Amino acid sequence: METEIKDISRLTPKEVRSLIRKGTWDKPTAGLALGYAQANLVILPERYAFDFLLFCQRNPKPCPLLEVLEKGVPEPRETAPGADVRTDLPRYRIYEKGTFVREIEDISRHWASDLVSFLLGCSYSFEFALLEAEIHLRHIEEGKNVSMYITDIPCKKAGGFEGPLVVSMRPLSPDKVVRAIQITTRFSAVHGAPVHVGDPSRIGIDDLGKPDFGDPVRIGPDEVPVYWACGVTPQVALTKNRPDLVITHSPGHMFITDIRNEDLATS
Amino acid sequence: METEIKDISRLTPKEVRSLIRKGTWDKPTAGLALGYAQANLVILPERYAFDFLLFCQRNPKPCPLLEVLEKGVPEPRETAPGADVRTDLPRYRIYEKGTFVREIEDISRHWASDLVSFLLGCSYSFEFALLEAEIHLRHIEEGKNVSMYITDIPCKKAGGFEGPLVVSMRPLSPDKVVRAIQITTRFSAVHGAPVHVGDPSRIGIDDLGKPDFGDPVRIGPDEVPVYWACGVTPQVALTKNRPDLVITHSPGHMFITDIRNEDLATS
Repeated sequence: METEIKDISRLTPKEVRSLIRKGTWDKPTAGLALGYAQANLVILPERYAFDFLLFCQRNPKPCPLLEVLEKGVPEPRETAPGADVRTDLPRYRIYEKGTFVREIEDISRHWASDLVSFLLGCSYSFEFALLEAEIHLRHIEEGKNVSMYITDIPCKKAGGFEGPLVVSMRPLSPDKVVRAIQITTRFSAVHGAPVHVGDPSRIGIDDLGKPDFGDPVRIGPDEVPVYWACGVTPQVALTKNRPDLVITHSPGHMFITDIRNEDLATS
Repeated sequence: METEIKDISRLTPKEVRSLIRKGTWDKPTAGLALGYAQANLVILPERYAFDFLLFCQRNPKPCPLLEVLEKGVPEPRETAPGADVRTDLPRYRIYEKGTFVREIEDISRHWASDLVSFLLGCSYSFEFALLEAEIHLRHIEEGKNVSMYITDIPCKKAGGFEGPLVVSMRPLSPDKVVRAIQITTRFSAVHGAPVHVGDPSRIGIDDLGKPDFGDPVRIGPDEVPVYWACGVTPQVALTKNRPDLVITHSPGHMFITDIRNEDLATS
Protein backbone atom coordinates (compact mmCIF):
# COMPACT_ATOMS: atom_id res chain seq x y z
CA MET A 1 0.00 0.00 0.00
CA GLU A 2 2.83 2.41 0.89
CA THR A 3 4.48 1.56 -2.43
CA GLU A 4 1.26 2.21 -4.29
CA ILE A 5 0.88 5.68 -2.72
CA LYS A 6 4.52 6.48 -3.44
CA ASP A 7 4.03 5.55 -7.07
CA ILE A 8 0.87 7.55 -7.47
CA SER A 9 2.59 10.64 -6.03
CA ARG A 10 4.83 10.58 -9.12
CA LEU A 11 2.04 10.27 -11.69
CA THR A 12 1.15 13.32 -13.73
CA PRO A 13 -2.11 15.14 -12.93
CA LYS A 14 -3.62 13.68 -16.12
CA GLU A 15 -2.68 10.13 -15.11
CA VAL A 16 -4.14 10.58 -11.63
CA ARG A 17 -7.36 12.06 -13.04
CA SER A 18 -7.62 9.05 -15.36
CA LEU A 19 -7.34 6.64 -12.40
CA ILE A 20 -10.00 8.63 -10.57
CA ARG A 21 -12.29 8.72 -13.61
CA LYS A 22 -12.06 4.92 -13.95
CA GLY A 23 -12.93 4.53 -10.27
CA THR A 24 -9.50 3.02 -9.43
CA TRP A 25 -8.83 5.82 -6.90
CA ASP A 26 -11.65 7.06 -4.64
CA LYS A 27 -9.61 8.19 -1.63
CA PRO A 28 -8.31 11.65 -0.57
CA THR A 29 -5.95 13.39 -2.99
CA ALA A 30 -3.37 14.77 -0.52
CA GLY A 31 0.10 13.80 -1.72
CA LEU A 32 -0.97 12.87 -5.25
CA ALA A 33 0.75 14.45 -8.28
CA LEU A 34 3.12 16.31 -5.99
CA GLY A 35 3.93 19.85 -7.06
CA TYR A 36 0.64 20.43 -8.84
CA ALA A 37 -2.16 22.63 -7.53
CA GLN A 38 -5.29 20.97 -6.22
CA ALA A 39 -8.59 22.82 -6.22
CA ASN A 40 -11.86 23.07 -4.32
CA LEU A 41 -14.92 22.60 -6.53
CA VAL A 42 -18.25 24.43 -6.25
CA ILE A 43 -21.01 23.88 -8.81
CA LEU A 44 -24.15 26.04 -8.80
CA PRO A 45 -27.11 26.73 -11.08
CA GLU A 46 -26.68 29.79 -13.29
CA ARG A 47 -29.10 31.94 -11.30
CA TYR A 48 -26.72 31.94 -8.33
CA ALA A 49 -23.52 32.26 -10.38
CA PHE A 50 -23.16 36.05 -10.56
CA ASP A 51 -23.68 36.48 -6.81
CA PHE A 52 -21.24 33.68 -5.98
CA LEU A 53 -18.64 35.06 -8.41
CA LEU A 54 -19.13 38.45 -6.76
CA PHE A 55 -18.74 36.85 -3.30
CA CYS A 56 -15.41 35.39 -4.45
CA GLN A 57 -14.31 38.70 -5.98
CA ARG A 58 -15.11 40.52 -2.73
CA ASN A 59 -13.49 37.87 -0.52
CA PRO A 60 -10.43 36.76 -2.49
CA LYS A 61 -8.47 35.45 0.49
CA PRO A 62 -10.94 32.70 1.47
CA CYS A 63 -12.24 32.30 -2.11
CA PRO A 64 -9.26 32.46 -4.51
CA LEU A 65 -10.59 31.67 -7.98
CA LEU A 66 -8.37 29.47 -10.14
CA GLU A 67 -10.93 29.06 -12.92
CA VAL A 68 -14.63 29.66 -13.52
CA LEU A 69 -16.21 27.50 -16.22
CA GLU A 70 -18.92 28.83 -18.41
CA LYS A 71 -22.50 27.61 -18.05
CA GLY A 72 -22.85 23.94 -18.97
CA VAL A 73 -19.10 23.49 -19.62
CA PRO A 74 -17.53 20.62 -17.59
CA GLU A 75 -13.96 20.96 -19.00
CA PRO A 76 -11.54 23.29 -17.17
CA ARG A 77 -9.86 24.52 -20.36
CA GLU A 78 -7.40 26.77 -18.58
CA THR A 79 -6.23 24.70 -15.63
CA ALA A 80 -6.71 21.13 -16.96
CA PRO A 81 -7.57 20.82 -20.68
CA GLY A 82 -9.27 17.51 -21.41
CA ALA A 83 -10.39 16.98 -17.82
CA ASP A 84 -14.03 16.71 -16.73
CA VAL A 85 -15.26 18.07 -13.40
CA ARG A 86 -18.14 15.54 -13.44
CA THR A 87 -15.91 12.46 -13.18
CA ASP A 88 -12.37 13.48 -12.28
CA LEU A 89 -12.74 14.02 -8.53
CA PRO A 90 -12.82 10.98 -6.23
CA ARG A 91 -15.90 12.04 -4.26
CA TYR A 92 -18.55 14.73 -4.45
CA ARG A 93 -21.17 16.04 -2.07
CA ILE A 94 -24.65 17.07 -3.13
CA TYR A 95 -26.53 19.75 -1.17
CA GLU A 96 -30.17 20.65 -1.74
CA LYS A 97 -31.48 23.88 -0.19
CA GLY A 98 -28.35 24.01 1.98
CA THR A 99 -28.75 20.48 3.32
CA PHE A 100 -26.27 17.69 2.62
CA VAL A 101 -28.12 14.86 0.89
CA ARG A 102 -25.50 12.40 -0.37
CA GLU A 103 -21.87 11.68 -1.25
CA ILE A 104 -21.16 10.11 -4.65
CA GLU A 105 -18.21 9.28 -6.91
CA ASP A 106 -19.56 10.64 -10.19
CA ILE A 107 -21.98 13.52 -10.82
CA SER A 108 -22.69 12.86 -14.51
CA ARG A 109 -26.36 12.10 -13.87
CA HIS A 110 -26.74 15.32 -11.83
CA TRP A 111 -25.25 17.45 -14.59
CA ALA A 112 -27.38 20.06 -16.35
CA SER A 113 -26.78 22.69 -19.00
CA ASP A 114 -27.34 25.56 -16.54
CA LEU A 115 -24.62 24.55 -14.07
CA VAL A 116 -21.59 26.81 -13.49
CA SER A 117 -18.42 25.31 -12.00
CA PHE A 118 -15.94 27.20 -9.84
CA LEU A 119 -12.43 25.92 -9.05
CA LEU A 120 -10.89 27.58 -5.99
CA GLY A 121 -7.29 27.43 -4.82
CA CYS A 122 -6.47 25.29 -1.81
CA SER A 123 -3.93 25.46 0.99
CA TYR A 124 -2.12 22.33 -0.23
CA SER A 125 -0.31 24.65 -2.68
CA PHE A 126 1.10 26.97 -0.04
CA GLU A 127 1.77 24.07 2.34
CA PHE A 128 3.90 22.54 -0.40
CA ALA A 129 5.91 25.78 -0.55
CA LEU A 130 6.24 25.90 3.27
CA LEU A 131 7.45 22.30 3.38
CA GLU A 132 9.96 23.01 0.61
CA ALA A 133 11.32 25.77 2.87
CA GLU A 134 11.61 23.22 5.71
CA ILE A 135 8.86 24.84 7.73
CA HIS A 136 7.29 21.88 9.52
CA LEU A 137 3.51 21.62 9.68
CA ARG A 138 2.16 20.02 12.83
CA HIS A 139 -1.03 18.52 11.37
CA ILE A 140 1.02 16.72 8.72
CA GLU A 141 3.50 15.45 11.34
CA GLU A 142 0.57 14.21 13.44
CA GLY A 143 -1.26 12.72 10.45
CA LYS A 144 -4.35 14.88 11.07
CA ASN A 145 -6.53 17.35 9.24
CA VAL A 146 -5.56 20.97 9.76
CA SER A 147 -7.41 22.80 12.60
CA MET A 148 -10.08 25.17 11.30
CA TYR A 149 -12.08 27.80 13.22
CA ILE A 150 -15.05 30.07 12.59
CA THR A 151 -13.92 33.64 13.35
CA ASP A 152 -15.92 36.77 14.22
CA ILE A 153 -14.65 38.46 11.02
CA PRO A 154 -17.57 38.84 8.61
CA CYS A 155 -17.06 38.21 4.91
CA LYS A 156 -18.26 40.87 2.52
CA LYS A 157 -21.81 40.00 1.51
CA ALA A 158 -22.78 39.46 -2.15
CA GLY A 159 -26.42 38.84 -2.97
CA GLY A 160 -27.57 36.04 -0.68
CA PHE A 161 -24.03 34.86 0.08
CA GLU A 162 -22.64 35.86 3.46
CA GLY A 163 -21.06 34.41 6.56
CA PRO A 164 -18.03 34.48 8.82
CA LEU A 165 -14.44 34.04 7.69
CA VAL A 166 -13.20 30.53 8.48
CA VAL A 167 -9.45 30.18 9.10
CA SER A 168 -6.98 27.32 9.25
CA MET A 169 -4.34 27.53 11.99
CA ARG A 170 -0.77 26.24 11.91
CA PRO A 171 1.43 26.57 15.02
CA LEU A 172 4.94 27.72 14.08
CA SER A 173 8.12 28.27 16.04
CA PRO A 174 8.76 32.03 16.39
CA ASP A 175 11.80 31.94 14.10
CA LYS A 176 9.67 30.60 11.23
CA VAL A 177 6.80 33.11 11.36
CA VAL A 178 8.31 35.85 9.18
CA ARG A 179 9.47 33.41 6.50
CA ALA A 180 6.08 31.67 6.46
CA ILE A 181 4.37 35.05 5.92
CA GLN A 182 6.79 35.93 3.12
CA ILE A 183 6.32 32.60 1.37
CA THR A 184 2.54 32.56 1.51
CA THR A 185 2.33 36.22 0.47
CA ARG A 186 3.64 35.05 -2.92
CA PHE A 187 0.69 32.65 -3.21
CA SER A 188 -2.29 35.00 -3.35
CA ALA A 189 -4.00 32.56 -5.75
CA VAL A 190 -4.22 30.02 -2.91
CA HIS A 191 -5.27 32.08 0.15
CA GLY A 192 -2.05 34.17 0.30
CA ALA A 193 -0.63 35.81 3.41
CA PRO A 194 -2.05 34.99 6.86
CA VAL A 195 -5.00 37.02 8.14
CA HIS A 196 -3.75 37.00 11.74
CA VAL A 197 -0.82 35.97 13.93
CA GLY A 198 -1.00 35.22 17.66
CA ASP A 199 -3.86 35.72 20.11
CA PRO A 200 -6.90 33.72 18.94
CA SER A 201 -9.35 35.87 20.94
CA ARG A 202 -8.57 38.84 18.68
CA ILE A 203 -10.47 37.09 15.85
CA GLY A 204 -13.18 35.52 17.96
CA ILE A 205 -11.67 32.09 18.62
CA ASP A 206 -12.30 30.95 22.20
CA ASP A 207 -10.31 27.73 22.40
CA LEU A 208 -7.66 26.54 19.94
CA GLY A 209 -8.11 23.05 21.39
CA LYS A 210 -11.64 22.89 19.97
CA PRO A 211 -11.58 23.56 16.23
CA ASP A 212 -14.90 23.93 14.41
CA PHE A 213 -13.61 21.73 11.57
CA GLY A 214 -10.65 19.35 11.30
CA ASP A 215 -8.60 18.11 14.24
CA PRO A 216 -6.88 19.76 17.20
CA VAL A 217 -3.07 19.63 17.09
CA ARG A 218 -0.40 20.06 19.74
CA ILE A 219 0.75 23.67 20.20
CA GLY A 220 4.14 24.00 21.93
CA PRO A 221 4.57 26.56 24.74
CA ASP A 222 6.79 28.83 22.60
CA GLU A 223 4.89 28.36 19.36
CA VAL A 224 2.86 31.07 17.65
CA PRO A 225 -0.50 30.21 16.08
CA VAL A 226 -0.70 31.59 12.53
CA TYR A 227 -4.08 31.85 10.78
CA TRP A 228 -4.83 31.70 7.06
CA ALA A 229 -8.15 32.26 5.28
CA CYS A 230 -9.70 28.86 4.58
CA GLY A 231 -11.65 27.32 1.71
CA VAL A 232 -14.36 26.18 4.10
CA THR A 233 -15.51 29.84 4.16
CA PRO A 234 -17.43 29.66 0.85
CA GLN A 235 -19.01 26.35 1.93
CA VAL A 236 -20.41 28.06 5.05
CA ALA A 237 -21.69 30.94 2.90
CA LEU A 238 -23.25 28.45 0.47
CA THR A 239 -25.06 26.62 3.25
CA LYS A 240 -26.49 29.88 4.57
CA ASN A 241 -27.84 30.96 1.17
CA ARG A 242 -29.51 27.56 0.71
CA PRO A 243 -29.50 27.34 -3.12
CA ASP A 244 -31.71 24.64 -4.66
CA LEU A 245 -28.60 22.67 -5.64
CA VAL A 246 -24.91 22.86 -4.81
CA ILE A 247 -22.33 20.23 -5.73
CA THR A 248 -18.89 20.37 -4.10
CA HIS A 249 -15.87 18.09 -3.76
CA SER A 250 -15.95 15.95 -0.65
CA PRO A 251 -13.46 17.32 1.92
CA GLY A 252 -9.92 16.22 1.02
CA HIS A 253 -11.07 14.76 -2.31
CA MET A 254 -9.92 17.57 -4.55
CA PHE A 255 -9.61 18.33 -8.25
CA ILE A 256 -5.99 18.00 -9.43
CA THR A 257 -5.04 20.67 -11.99
CA ASP A 258 -2.18 20.80 -14.51
CA ILE A 259 -0.89 24.01 -12.89
CA ARG A 260 2.37 23.77 -10.95
CA ASN A 261 2.13 25.29 -7.47
CA GLU A 262 5.14 27.44 -8.27
CA ASP A 263 3.35 28.93 -11.28
CA LEU A 264 0.68 30.28 -8.91
CA ALA A 265 3.24 32.53 -7.19
CA THR A 266 2.62 36.19 -7.98
CA SER A 267 6.30 37.15 -7.98
CA MET B 1 -5.74 78.58 -12.81
CA GLU B 2 -2.47 77.00 -11.70
CA THR B 3 -3.30 77.93 -8.14
CA GLU B 4 -6.75 76.44 -8.45
CA ILE B 5 -5.32 73.11 -9.71
CA LYS B 6 -2.73 73.10 -6.94
CA ASP B 7 -5.41 73.60 -4.35
CA ILE B 8 -7.68 70.91 -5.75
CA SER B 9 -4.79 68.40 -5.68
CA ARG B 10 -4.85 68.74 -1.89
CA LEU B 11 -8.59 68.23 -1.45
CA THR B 12 -9.81 64.91 -0.11
CA PRO B 13 -11.46 62.49 -2.53
CA LYS B 14 -14.83 63.31 -0.93
CA GLU B 15 -14.31 67.05 -1.45
CA VAL B 16 -13.33 66.55 -5.08
CA ARG B 17 -16.33 64.29 -5.73
CA SER B 18 -18.56 66.97 -4.21
CA LEU B 19 -17.17 69.61 -6.60
CA ILE B 20 -17.72 67.21 -9.50
CA ARG B 21 -21.26 66.38 -8.36
CA LYS B 22 -22.14 70.11 -8.22
CA GLY B 23 -20.77 70.57 -11.74
CA THR B 24 -17.95 72.86 -10.52
CA TRP B 25 -15.32 70.49 -11.98
CA ASP B 26 -15.94 68.82 -15.36
CA LYS B 27 -12.33 68.41 -16.52
CA PRO B 28 -9.92 65.42 -16.39
CA THR B 29 -9.09 64.08 -12.94
CA ALA B 30 -5.32 63.51 -13.34
CA GLY B 31 -3.52 65.13 -10.41
CA LEU B 32 -6.64 65.53 -8.24
CA ALA B 33 -6.71 64.16 -4.67
CA LEU B 34 -3.10 63.04 -5.02
CA GLY B 35 -2.26 59.70 -3.43
CA TYR B 36 -5.76 58.27 -3.87
CA ALA B 37 -6.67 55.61 -6.40
CA GLN B 38 -8.74 56.61 -9.40
CA ALA B 39 -10.91 54.08 -11.20
CA ASN B 40 -12.29 53.26 -14.62
CA LEU B 41 -16.08 52.87 -14.65
CA VAL B 42 -18.10 50.38 -16.71
CA ILE B 43 -21.87 50.08 -16.28
CA LEU B 44 -23.82 47.28 -17.97
CA PRO B 45 -27.32 45.77 -17.80
CA GLU B 46 -27.58 42.72 -15.53
CA ARG B 47 -27.83 40.23 -18.41
CA TYR B 48 -24.23 41.02 -19.42
CA ALA B 49 -22.85 41.26 -15.87
CA PHE B 50 -21.83 37.64 -15.25
CA ASP B 51 -19.95 37.39 -18.54
CA PHE B 52 -18.20 40.72 -18.00
CA LEU B 53 -17.27 39.77 -14.42
CA LEU B 54 -15.92 36.49 -15.80
CA PHE B 55 -13.97 38.40 -18.49
CA CYS B 56 -12.36 40.48 -15.73
CA GLN B 57 -11.66 37.38 -13.62
CA ARG B 58 -9.97 35.70 -16.59
CA ASN B 59 -8.03 38.80 -17.62
CA PRO B 60 -7.02 40.42 -14.32
CA LYS B 61 -4.05 42.35 -15.68
CA PRO B 62 -6.02 44.54 -18.11
CA CYS B 63 -9.22 44.37 -15.99
CA PRO B 64 -8.25 44.69 -12.31
CA LEU B 65 -11.48 44.92 -10.33
CA LEU B 66 -11.52 47.37 -7.44
CA GLU B 67 -15.23 47.00 -6.71
CA VAL B 68 -18.32 45.54 -8.34
CA LEU B 69 -21.62 47.09 -7.24
CA GLU B 70 -24.71 45.01 -6.94
CA LYS B 71 -27.57 45.41 -9.41
CA GLY B 72 -29.20 48.84 -9.12
CA VAL B 73 -26.75 50.07 -6.45
CA PRO B 74 -25.01 53.36 -7.36
CA GLU B 75 -22.96 53.71 -4.14
CA PRO B 76 -19.47 52.13 -4.03
CA ARG B 77 -19.75 51.08 -0.40
CA GLU B 78 -16.26 49.57 -0.23
CA THR B 79 -14.11 52.06 -2.08
CA ALA B 80 -16.06 55.33 -1.52
CA PRO B 81 -18.96 55.15 0.95
CA GLY B 82 -21.48 57.93 0.33
CA ALA B 83 -20.37 58.46 -3.27
CA ASP B 84 -22.64 58.01 -6.30
CA VAL B 85 -21.36 56.67 -9.61
CA ARG B 86 -24.21 58.49 -11.42
CA THR B 87 -23.01 61.98 -10.55
CA ASP B 88 -19.48 61.85 -9.16
CA LEU B 89 -17.47 61.53 -12.37
CA PRO B 90 -16.88 64.66 -14.49
CA ARG B 91 -17.91 63.09 -17.81
CA TYR B 92 -19.49 59.87 -19.02
CA ARG B 93 -19.85 58.18 -22.38
CA ILE B 94 -22.96 56.32 -23.48
CA TYR B 95 -22.69 53.47 -25.98
CA GLU B 96 -25.65 51.73 -27.58
CA LYS B 97 -25.05 48.40 -29.36
CA GLY B 98 -21.31 49.13 -29.31
CA THR B 99 -21.63 52.57 -30.86
CA PHE B 100 -20.74 55.81 -29.04
CA VAL B 101 -23.83 58.01 -28.90
CA ARG B 102 -23.06 60.88 -26.53
CA GLU B 103 -20.90 62.34 -23.76
CA ILE B 104 -22.69 63.76 -20.70
CA GLU B 105 -21.89 65.05 -17.21
CA ASP B 106 -24.54 63.17 -15.24
CA ILE B 107 -26.13 59.79 -15.95
CA SER B 108 -29.00 59.98 -13.42
CA ARG B 109 -31.64 59.95 -16.13
CA HIS B 110 -30.04 56.89 -17.78
CA TRP B 111 -30.00 54.95 -14.52
CA ALA B 112 -32.11 51.80 -14.16
CA SER B 113 -32.59 49.16 -11.47
CA ASP B 114 -30.92 46.43 -13.59
CA LEU B 115 -27.60 48.23 -14.08
CA VAL B 116 -24.40 46.76 -12.61
CA SER B 117 -21.38 49.03 -12.09
CA PHE B 118 -17.76 47.90 -12.24
CA LEU B 119 -14.85 50.01 -10.93
CA LEU B 120 -11.50 48.95 -12.39
CA GLY B 121 -8.04 49.99 -11.25
CA CYS B 122 -6.14 52.50 -13.36
CA SER B 123 -2.47 53.10 -14.14
CA TYR B 124 -2.48 56.45 -12.32
CA SER B 125 -1.96 54.42 -9.13
CA PHE B 126 1.21 52.68 -10.25
CA GLU B 127 2.45 55.84 -12.01
CA PHE B 128 2.17 57.58 -8.63
CA ALA B 129 4.39 54.86 -7.11
CA LEU B 130 6.89 55.12 -10.00
CA LEU B 131 7.09 58.91 -9.64
CA GLU B 132 7.60 58.55 -5.88
CA ALA B 133 10.60 56.36 -6.73
CA GLU B 134 11.90 59.13 -9.05
CA ILE B 135 11.28 57.10 -12.19
CA HIS B 136 10.43 59.75 -14.76
CA LEU B 137 7.51 59.18 -17.11
CA ARG B 138 7.93 60.69 -20.54
CA HIS B 139 4.26 61.31 -21.33
CA ILE B 140 3.90 63.32 -18.11
CA GLU B 141 7.07 65.31 -18.87
CA GLU B 142 5.72 66.03 -22.36
CA GLY B 143 2.21 66.83 -21.12
CA LYS B 144 0.64 64.11 -23.27
CA ASN B 145 -1.56 61.05 -22.91
CA VAL B 146 0.33 57.79 -22.50
CA SER B 147 0.96 55.84 -25.77
CA MET B 148 -1.36 52.83 -26.11
CA TYR B 149 -1.20 49.99 -28.65
CA ILE B 150 -3.37 47.05 -29.72
CA THR B 151 -1.23 43.89 -29.43
CA ASP B 152 -1.58 40.48 -31.06
CA ILE B 153 -2.06 38.86 -27.63
CA PRO B 154 -5.68 37.66 -27.34
CA CYS B 155 -7.57 38.09 -24.08
CA LYS B 156 -9.29 35.04 -22.65
CA LYS B 157 -12.86 35.03 -23.95
CA ALA B 158 -15.87 35.05 -21.60
CA GLY B 159 -19.33 34.77 -23.11
CA GLY B 160 -19.53 37.42 -25.83
CA PHE B 161 -16.59 39.41 -24.46
CA GLU B 162 -13.30 39.00 -26.32
CA GLY B 163 -10.60 41.01 -28.00
CA PRO B 164 -6.89 41.80 -28.08
CA LEU B 165 -4.84 42.95 -25.10
CA VAL B 166 -4.21 46.69 -25.26
CA VAL B 167 -1.00 47.92 -23.60
CA SER B 168 0.35 51.27 -22.48
CA MET B 169 4.06 51.88 -23.15
CA ARG B 170 6.52 53.92 -21.11
CA PRO B 171 10.12 54.34 -22.30
CA LEU B 172 12.57 53.92 -19.41
CA SER B 173 16.31 54.27 -19.10
CA PRO B 174 17.88 50.78 -18.77
CA ASP B 175 18.91 51.37 -15.14
CA LYS B 176 15.26 51.96 -14.15
CA VAL B 177 13.68 48.89 -15.75
CA VAL B 178 14.19 46.39 -12.93
CA ARG B 179 13.01 48.82 -10.24
CA ALA B 180 9.92 49.73 -12.30
CA ILE B 181 9.05 46.03 -12.63
CA GLN B 182 9.51 45.49 -8.89
CA ILE B 183 7.38 48.49 -7.97
CA THR B 184 4.49 47.70 -10.30
CA THR B 185 4.55 44.01 -9.33
CA ARG B 186 3.33 45.18 -5.90
CA PHE B 187 0.31 46.83 -7.55
CA SER B 188 -1.57 43.88 -9.01
CA ALA B 189 -4.86 45.67 -8.24
CA VAL B 190 -3.94 48.31 -10.83
CA HIS B 191 -2.50 46.31 -13.78
CA GLY B 192 0.56 45.00 -11.88
CA ALA B 193 3.85 43.99 -13.47
CA PRO B 194 4.57 44.73 -17.14
CA VAL B 195 3.47 42.21 -19.76
CA HIS B 196 6.53 42.77 -21.95
CA VAL B 197 9.86 44.61 -22.09
CA GLY B 198 11.72 45.59 -25.27
CA ASP B 199 11.03 44.66 -28.90
CA PRO B 200 7.52 45.84 -29.85
CA SER B 201 7.26 43.36 -32.77
CA ARG B 202 7.21 40.46 -30.27
CA ILE B 203 3.70 41.52 -29.20
CA GLY B 204 2.44 42.60 -32.59
CA ILE B 205 3.23 46.32 -32.49
CA ASP B 206 4.57 47.58 -35.83
CA ASP B 207 5.50 51.16 -35.05
CA LEU B 208 5.86 52.71 -31.60
CA GLY B 209 5.56 56.13 -33.28
CA LYS B 210 1.95 55.38 -34.21
CA PRO B 211 -0.02 54.45 -31.08
CA ASP B 212 -3.60 53.21 -31.51
CA PHE B 213 -4.74 55.40 -28.62
CA GLY B 214 -3.12 58.34 -26.82
CA ASP B 215 -0.09 60.25 -28.10
CA PRO B 216 3.35 59.26 -29.39
CA VAL B 217 6.22 60.24 -27.09
CA ARG B 218 9.97 60.61 -27.63
CA ILE B 219 11.95 57.40 -27.10
CA GLY B 220 15.68 58.00 -26.51
CA PRO B 221 18.22 55.80 -28.35
CA ASP B 222 19.23 53.93 -25.17
CA GLU B 223 15.76 53.71 -23.69
CA VAL B 224 13.80 50.49 -23.30
CA PRO B 225 10.04 50.44 -24.03
CA VAL B 226 8.15 48.79 -21.19
CA TYR B 227 4.55 47.63 -21.72
CA TRP B 228 1.76 47.34 -19.16
CA ALA B 229 -1.74 45.90 -19.61
CA CYS B 230 -4.12 48.80 -20.17
CA GLY B 231 -7.67 49.63 -19.09
CA VAL B 232 -8.65 50.33 -22.70
CA THR B 233 -8.69 46.52 -23.18
CA PRO B 234 -12.16 46.00 -21.63
CA GLN B 235 -13.50 48.94 -23.64
CA VAL B 236 -12.40 47.21 -26.87
CA ALA B 237 -13.99 43.95 -25.66
CA LEU B 238 -17.18 45.84 -24.79
CA THR B 239 -17.41 47.43 -28.21
CA LYS B 240 -17.03 44.04 -29.90
CA ASN B 241 -19.81 42.43 -27.86
CA ARG B 242 -22.15 45.34 -28.71
CA PRO B 243 -24.41 45.27 -25.61
CA ASP B 244 -27.64 47.27 -25.83
CA LEU B 245 -26.23 49.80 -23.35
CA VAL B 246 -22.82 50.51 -21.86
CA ILE B 247 -21.94 53.57 -19.79
CA THR B 248 -18.27 54.34 -19.09
CA HIS B 249 -16.25 57.25 -17.77
CA SER B 250 -14.97 59.56 -20.48
CA PRO B 251 -11.22 58.97 -21.01
CA GLY B 252 -9.23 60.74 -18.30
CA HIS B 253 -12.39 61.66 -16.36
CA MET B 254 -12.15 59.00 -13.69
CA PHE B 255 -13.89 58.07 -10.46
CA ILE B 256 -11.82 59.09 -7.41
CA THR B 257 -11.97 56.51 -4.62
CA ASP B 258 -11.18 56.85 -0.90
CA ILE B 259 -8.49 54.13 -1.23
CA ARG B 260 -4.87 55.23 -0.91
CA ASN B 261 -2.69 53.97 -3.77
CA GLU B 262 -0.31 52.50 -1.22
CA ASP B 263 -3.13 50.42 0.27
CA LEU B 264 -3.53 48.68 -3.10
CA ALA B 265 -0.03 47.21 -2.85
CA THR B 266 -0.16 43.47 -2.30
CA SER B 267 2.95 43.35 -0.12
